[in-house]
Order: sequence, then C-alpha cells, then structure tokens
Amino acid sequence: MAQFPTVGVIGAGQLARMMIAPSIALGVNLKVFAQAQDDSAALNADFVLGNYSRADEVLAFAKNCDVVTFEHELIPQSVIAELEKNGIVVRPRGSSFIFSQNKAELRKKLSEHNLPSPAWQLRSQPLELDFPLIAKSISGGYDGRGVWVIHNEGELKELGESDFLLEEKLNFTSEIAVMVARSPHGQIATWPATETVQSEGICIKTVTPAPSLTHEQHGLAQKLAIEIADVVGLVGVMAVEMFLVDGSFVINELAMRPHNSGHWTIEGSTTSQFEQHLRAVLDLPLGDTAMRAPFAVMGNILGGEKTDMYRPYLHLFARTPHLKIHQYRKTVKPGRKVGHVTAIGNNLDSLHEEVQHAVDYMNGAIDE
Amino acid sequence: MAQFPTVGVIGAGQLARMMIAPSIALGVNLKVFAQAQDDSAALNADFVLGNYSRADEVLAFAKNCDVVTFEHELIPQSVIAELEKNGIVVRPRGSSFIFSQNKAELRKKLSEHNLPSPAWQLRSQPLELDFPLIAKSISGGYDGRGVWVIHNEGELKELGESDFLLEEKLNFTSEIAVMVARSPHGQIATWPATETVQSEGICIKTVTPAPSLTHEQHGLAQKLAIEIADVVGLVGVMAVEMFLVDGSFVINELAMRPHNSGHWTIEGSTTSQFEQHLRAVLDLPLGDTAMRAPFAVMGNILGGEKTDMYRPYLHLFARTPHLKIHQYRKTVKPGRKVGHVTAIGNNLDSLHEEVQHAVDYMNGAIDE
Repeated sequence: MAQFPTVGVIGAGQLARMMIAPSIALGVNLKVFAQAQDDSAALNADFVLGNYSRADEVLAFAKNCDVVTFEHELIPQSVIAELEKNGIVVRPRGSSFIFSQNKAELRKKLSEHNLPSPAWQLRSQPLELDFPLIAKSISGGYDGRGVWVIHNEGELKELGESDFLLEEKLNFTSEIAVMVARSPHGQIATWPATETVQSEGICIKTVTPAPSLTHEQHGLAQKLAIEIADVVGLVGVMAVEMFLVDGSFVINELAMRPHNSGHWTIEGSTTSQFEQHLRAVLDLPLGDTAMRAPFAVMGNILGGEKTDMYRPYLHLFARTPHLKIHQYRKTVKPGRKVGHVTAIGNNLDSLHEEVQHAVDYMNGAIDE
Repeated sequence: MAQFPTVGVIGAGQLARMMIAPSIALGVNLKVFAQAQDDSAALNADFVLGNYSRADEVLAFAKNCDVVTFEHELIPQSVIAELEKNGIVVRPRGSSFIFSQNKAELRKKLSEHNLPSPAWQLRSQPLELDFPLIAKSISGGYDGRGVWVIHNEGELKELGESDFLLEEKLNFTSEIAVMVARSPHGQIATWPATETVQSEGICIKTVTPAPSLTHEQHGLAQKLAIEIADVVGLVGVMAVEMFLVDGSFVINELAMRPHNSGHWTIEGSTTSQFEQHLRAVLDLPLGDTAMRAPFAVMGNILGGEKTDMYRPYLHLFARTPHLKIHQYRKTVKPGRKVGHVTAIGNNLDSLHEEVQHAVDYMNGAIDE
C-alpha cells in the first residue's frame, strides 16, 4: 500500500460526492466507478466509466484501489464474488452486503437472531398474512419505489409473477433511523437516533435526536443497530431503518452505506458519516460521533418548478446565515433529490422553520 | 453566467485545496492555476498549469472563470492590471491586493488613515529609527523569511542595495490575527480573534478565542479588522495580523486570502474561511461566523524525520477520536507545513495537550 491508500467507490451519485471532502482532508485518494461523466461525484473526483454489472470492468477499476466499497445496492453479488475471488479487498464483504441488497435474506437473518421484524413471508409461500399487507420487491426498491400496500387477493395478483416479500402492515408512530459504523476488527460507533419524515415514500426531512423517543428508547435503538451491525458483519457505515410500534422497534430495512438519514452528520456531528465510512473501510480508528449542537434538522431539496439552484442563495443565505447547503449538481426533475440543507442549533422550532423555508424556496413552492 | 459560476484561483497550494470542499457543497466550479500537477490543490481540483508572471497565460485561464481570486501574493500587479483591462472580474481588485503584496504601501495606507503601525520608514530615507530595528523585504516575505532584526549600521549595510521597510522593534505580549470577510457591496463579517504562536517565525499553533485578550480588547481587535477591510476595499477574506503592545494593537501585516490563522474555522465555526472566501468573491451573502465550541486549537504539522503521514492515524485517531486532520499531500521536508490538526471543545488545557501530542507524533518528535 502506498503511503496514502486509494478507496474505490462503486457508484458516483451524491453519496460518493459527499465522500470527497473528507477524503481530501484525510489525504486519501478517492476513485469512483461512474455510469456517466456528469454523475454527481464524477464532477469532482477521479472516475472510471463502466457498467457495474460487468465483472471485467469493475475488476479493472478495483485493481487500482486498495479497498472497494459501495454507494448503491445495484452491483450484482456475482460481480462482488468475482472481485473477492481476485483478491480485491471489498468492504463490506458480499456476504454482508447481501442484507442491504436482498430484503428476503435480511428477514431470514433477523428472524434467525430473534431481531424484531414485522410478520413476513415470501409471496411464493402459502398466504398466512391478513390484508391489508405490504408487498416489497426483494431487491432494487428505494425511495418508495418497489413497495405497495395490498388490500386483497386481486391486488396481490396484479403484482405479477415474480417473487415478493410480504409483510404485515404496521401502525407505526414514527420512523427512526440509526446510523452505525463498524470497522473490520469490530470497533463500532453509532450516532444519536434520527427521526425521518416521509412524504409519498420519499424522505423529506430528518430530525436528530429523534424527538419521539424517550431517553431509554434512544439507547435501545442504538443497541439494536449495534447488534445488527455485528450480526451482518458490517464494515463501513449502515443505516438501520426502524418503525416505532407501540413503543417498540421493528426493523424496516438496512442500507449498508452512507444514507440520507445521516446527512445531518456533516455539520451536526464531530465525524460525518462520510468520513466515518472512509475510516471504517480503511480500518482506521473510528471518529467521535458526538453532536455539535443539541439539534440537527436536514431537509431534502426535491426538484420542483424552479431549475436554477444557485440564484436562490441570494435570498436564503441572507435570511439564514447559518444554513448549510449541499448541491448534488443533478439536473432538476420533479421530485428528484437534487440537494439538501442542514441547520443545527438549540431551538428545534426555529430549525424546522428555517429548513422548511429553505427547501420550499429552493424548489419554487414559495417565492420568499 | 451559467447556473453555477466558476471561481478561478491563482495558486494551487493548501489554501486552494481547502476551498475544494466548500465549492463542492455550494455546487460552485473551482479551477486552480497551478505551477505543477502535484500541487496540493491540483491533486483534487480542475487545474491549468502556467506561470503566474505571464499575463497571457493567466488571461487564458481567467477567461474561463466568472471571477478570479488568489491564494498567494506572488502574481505581479502588472498581470492583475492586464486581467482587469480585459474585463476579468478580479476579487480582491489589484488596487486592494497591493496592500497584501507590498508592505511599504500598506504602511502608507495605514498611516494615512491613522491606523496603528509601528514607527516605520524606508531604508532609502535618512535613518530616524533607533537600533535594534526590524528590516523587512517590501514584498515576497512569509513564514519568517524576509524579516531581520538589525542591531547596528553594519548589519543594515549587510542587507545589500535593494530597498527595505524599516520598523521599530516592538516588545509585544502576544500576536493576534483577526480573520475578516467583505463582499463587493460591503457586507462584513469577522470571526473571534485568534492568538498565533510562532516558533522561528513560523506559526505553529493558533488558539481561538485569543486567551490573552480581555472581552473589550477582543471587540477592539475585530473593530480594527473591519476598519482596515473598508480602507483597503477588501473583497474575500483577509487575515489582519497584529501585535498586542502595552494593551494596544499595532498592525503587523495583512494577508488578503484565507490564512493559516483561520484554519480553525473549518471545524470551529459555522462558516469556514474557505467557504466565506467563495461567498465573498461571488457576492453571495456571508455566512454565520459563530463558533461551534467555546475553544478551537489548531496545530501545524511541520515536516520532521517521519515521512509517512498516513500510518500515524492508527495511533492518533484511537487516542483522540475528536481530532480532525487536514493533509496537504506535500512531500515532507524539514520545517515545511504539510498539514494541520484541529481540536474544538470546552477544555482549553485538553485541546492544547491533544493538538501538541498530534503534531509531535506526526512529525516524529515523540514516538507515542
């Protein structure tokens, strides 16, 4: 290994983009495996263009890296296996990453370890769940895609022939995410639990620490995330998404990479999820996850009518001098995440107002 | 101007390097005018190689930028004039930047406005100052280079034929720097005053807020920095370096760009000097300069015996999980600034110990 190692990231969206800043600070080389030269991260990092489904292309990229990691779940297990067979250091390993890619494998693993899932079954099995139920694509779903509420046999049939994961429909009081980091030799760190606010299946806002949790629940949520990190053999950071149901946690899904629910850590924590991911996959000691202020509110900028994402700075930065923005430099399309804003401080009501104003102004929902 | 503007930086050292992270967050394009492809900033930003003394080369670079700014003082005034004549937006303007480049011009300007300088004269004028006195190169000196203590006529003669600035030798109690930002339409922001600790003319450590200042002196130092920013027509950020002499401030020099004494702002303030510089030269509203913790201590990593700047992370990050490091990716040479570390928090004694340990361990002065 040369003095400063090279981390290769499969994928070049905003998650890889936000790894660039900590990679520069640490002096670590970052290379991204992109699909297009205008991918978010390819605009600002060394990149190789290729198809993540082709083992030869990914392997050629990986051979120039000391460690390879992911920013999305789309790379096939067969490609990861090929990398590992060729001696590439892949973190997390394919045998761990499967739980981020395949919802059925995750449910089996959690059930084996008596970790809390909703009642679940595969669609291919005789139906035991009551309607209404939730049907999920076993792989590939995100941001509300690949998830359906099913009210009756007819709707179930409409899903088509392929297999699905079926789950009981929970009446949850809130959605919680805990970011957790684990290094190869097993050091683990978590951040305070985050409450995620969704609209039409897309996360629009996060609040940290999660206001709906008691102090005790907060500890339990973190404990659960740590247990799961160990059970799945996590290396890197991972979002553990949970539902709070009658005061107890039920695991929704995992994302074994930096995640939208951890964006607040860039400003809100001593160590961001992006720096922590680099530390973990490089087997460096993990950084302090303490918050820099009592509260952090993050709002996603979703594409709306407005297409100029720069000019709004003139108003927003004058109105809220402590607001921090992160642009992904993606073409604005309706509903697409094109950036986010974060505000941290002591007064949660003010932070909510500032973040809501900013995202509404950025996407054109309000004029001032 | 395209949706996201392009900022061109003349120079590609660590100061330009540390502008990259905020440029990515803001979505702003950053281009650096480098001397070599392994310059600190050229390793991670779009760059053009060229000679900053050649107007044609700088102009060709500048024509692809919406605004051009500086990270060092070496570009000749004649080149800046050529840029301005060709309609390039240069910030700060050459007529302002001269006060960062030419110590005699600065002294004249400060004296005109009754701003506190030591007693001074040019060497070409009849000697009025008493020995010992300070002789300074009028331009080009930094990090202790270009400054001499002169005890007698003989030593003065040894300096040679070129002109020098001569100044009274002050008995100061501390060295203070105030970072100040100013935008083209005159919005100004300052950060808390910083105390700089020097060894052999090189800054080795900074402490913010400056511990040797009373609350009232703190306000006076900031007021002085604001006055000077207006007087010189600053656009961007500037370090105002001052001596504290018998409880009063005397201006030492200006650096009209991000500066070592402001590195603590990356972690220690809501808005870093690097983000603020981009905001100012783009005429965006300035960001909040509040501190994120009561104290911030920054230590420069000076090259020593150790040449591997990565392996020390294994010990340092385990010892001090909240320590933040910034690598410049420069070849280690004795005494050369190759990076810095920052620690912020409530306990100033701990921060001093942690930063001192880190810089000593990084450069090999101690083993653990």
